[in-house]
Amino acid sequence: MRILITGAAGMIGRKLTARLVADGMLRKEQIVSIHLHDIVAFEAPDAPFDITVLAGDLASEGVAGALVAGRPDVIFHLAGVVSGEAETDFDKGYRANLDGTRALFDAVRKANGYVPRLVYTSSIAVFGAPFPETIGDDFAPVPLTSYGTQKLVGELLLNDYTRRGFMDGVGLRLPTICVRPGKPNLAASGFFSSIIREPLAGKEAVLPVSRNIVHTHASPRSAVGFLLHAAALAGDAIGPRRNITLPSVAVSVAGQIEALREIAGDETFRLIREERDPAIEAIVNFWPTRFDAARARKLGFVAETDFAEIIRAHIEDELGG
Amino acid sequence: MRILITGAAGMIGRKLTARLVADGMLRKEQIVSIHLHDIVAFEAPDAPFDITVLAGDLASEGVAGALVAGRPDVIFHLAGVVSGEAETDFDKGYRANLDGTRALFDAVRKANGYVPRLVYTSSIAVFGAPFPETIGDDFAPVPLTSYGTQKLVGELLLNDYTRRGFMDGVGLRLPTICVRPGKPNLAASGFFSSIIREPLAGKEAVLPVSRNIVHTHASPRSAVGFLLHAAALAGDAIGPRRNITLPSVAVSVAGQIEALREIAGDETFRLIREERDPAIEAIVNFWPTRFDAARARKLGFVAETDFAEIIRAHIEDELGG
Repeated sequence: MRILITGAAGMIGRKLTARLVADGMLRKEQIVSIHLHDIVAFEAPDAPFDITVLAGDLASEGVAGALVAGRPDVIFHLAGVVSGEAETDFDKGYRANLDGTRALFDAVRKANGYVPRLVYTSSIAVFGAPFPETIGDDFAPVPLTSYGTQKLVGELLLNDYTRRGFMDGVGLRLPTICVRPGKPNLAASGFFSSIIREPLAGKEAVLPVSRNIVHTHASPRSAVGFLLHAAALAGDAIGPRRNITLPSVAVSVAGQIEALREIAGDETFRLIREERDPAIEAIVNFWPTRFDAARARKLGFVAETDFAEIIRAHIEDELGG
Repeated sequence: MRILITGAAGMIGRKLTARLVADGMLRKEQIVSIHLHDIVAFEAPDAPFDITVLAGDLASEGVAGALVAGRPDVIFHLAGVVSGEAETDFDKGYRANLDGTRALFDAVRKANGYVPRLVYTSSIAVFGAPFPETIGDDFAPVPLTSYGTQKLVGELLLNDYTRRGFMDGVGLRLPTICVRPGKPNLAASGFFSSIIREPLAGKEAVLPVSRNIVHTHASPRSAVGFLLHAAALAGDAIGPRRNITLPSVAVSVAGQIEALREIAGDETFRLIREERDPAIEAIVNFWPTRFDAARARKLGFVAETDFAEIIRAHIEDELGG
């Protein structure tokens, strides 16, 4: 089992790598090598097999071809610039998220007789308001950001390249991943994590939106689980619609905070300071709230069932229990 | 009013040009020039204003930039390779339909302070089975062809470029255009037109599918009407979802034939010979049948109301009444 991970220096890439190194196996096969790609070099973790970092811009001539030259059996394509950056830097977003993805897919296509399982991280950002009460699997995605647009173009290419037999793709529409470890960031969605993570670390956190806002989440642990499950799914079971909206926990901000209080007590809870930010509220109001995800559940994808479980995953995985 | 039409040598491009030349006006403004683009040179019709043919491959460096250098007020982007060809020649389809479209949109984007109305012809080929009984405006498009994929990518770019203020785009998901004038062609959809057109000309036509097949049509005259209406629509009225499924006549093949018999008599009707072609049936079975098109109707797009009306449009426009 040879594995390639693009965008491997990101939060999910690092957790996926750690899990694969710990397991030593994927799809019941012994891992022989993992090639870790990112746009900049970083340090590979120790592993009892070949683990190599390859730095480069996927959209640059020859980079994608070099990545697939060793014909990895499974490719996890996580590389991309995030939502906020794709919105502020138009050219960078299209280059990384659209041209980079297409270059990778074309490199696979041009390697004759090579049809790897390719797991692609799309996002619920492909959806734009107005939404029904619950978003079903047949609801039309109409992105309201350049990031969502680029991710959806990647989905379409993945579906067509798979239909034509150039690769065996699975696209995963990840929900908001919460609780993100590490420092607070400036993403509009950052507060969903920081209102949990910071109080648990004894620090104050700012809540910039109404407690009535409903959004949908899964833990980093679930995100890794989604990726591994997608790598192992039988293509026939998936069928011709290769992009899948994943299960997640739909919860109001009030529900998130209540779960935190139940787990960590009133003192922790009081570290959340409400300070409405109309700019962030305007963005978050257009985000999807809850998904049906019937197809994903039928295919065996599993997320947490309530927000308390998401908090406990954070405590176990990041805070040593 | 300066106008650019890409793919102007095609059937719809020629009819649109003829209509604009006859009207002399668009959006109540006097037409000053029409630039007609196609991949190969062709003869421009006579017109009482500047009418110029510009030949070139939109995806080639500099071609799109030259087309928009004169800053046309309205661009009709019809250029592209058809469904069958995009399926047999993967590279050609992606180059013409995706790279060509993106090159045109980027040329507009890079012309500072220039925000033309751009009318883009997409297609109901963006939809793939399985379908509900009636396809609503919120039903997710999942193409089952490379052509449908490329058209949908164009839609997404149009929506994002419009949202960001780079252009003022409207994408039109054209139904099958029927009755197509001219010779029978080899497209899988060709029979929908030939079973009407050939008998009306006293010639035999072959019906390769079951009479129970339901599909959805509009006349070439309606197609031109859609384009002109889209050119004149107020952007605010359209809102943030810039791609529109158009009204059309959903009818079974039996219904088409019955309408023909009522208009042209039993003798004409007997010129249709049934000879099932499993290859064509397999394709047509995955095509969409009927659309709600509520949003388009609300925006004032008008198609025929029954198939007899489509036949009469053909008789009037192509057979001199």
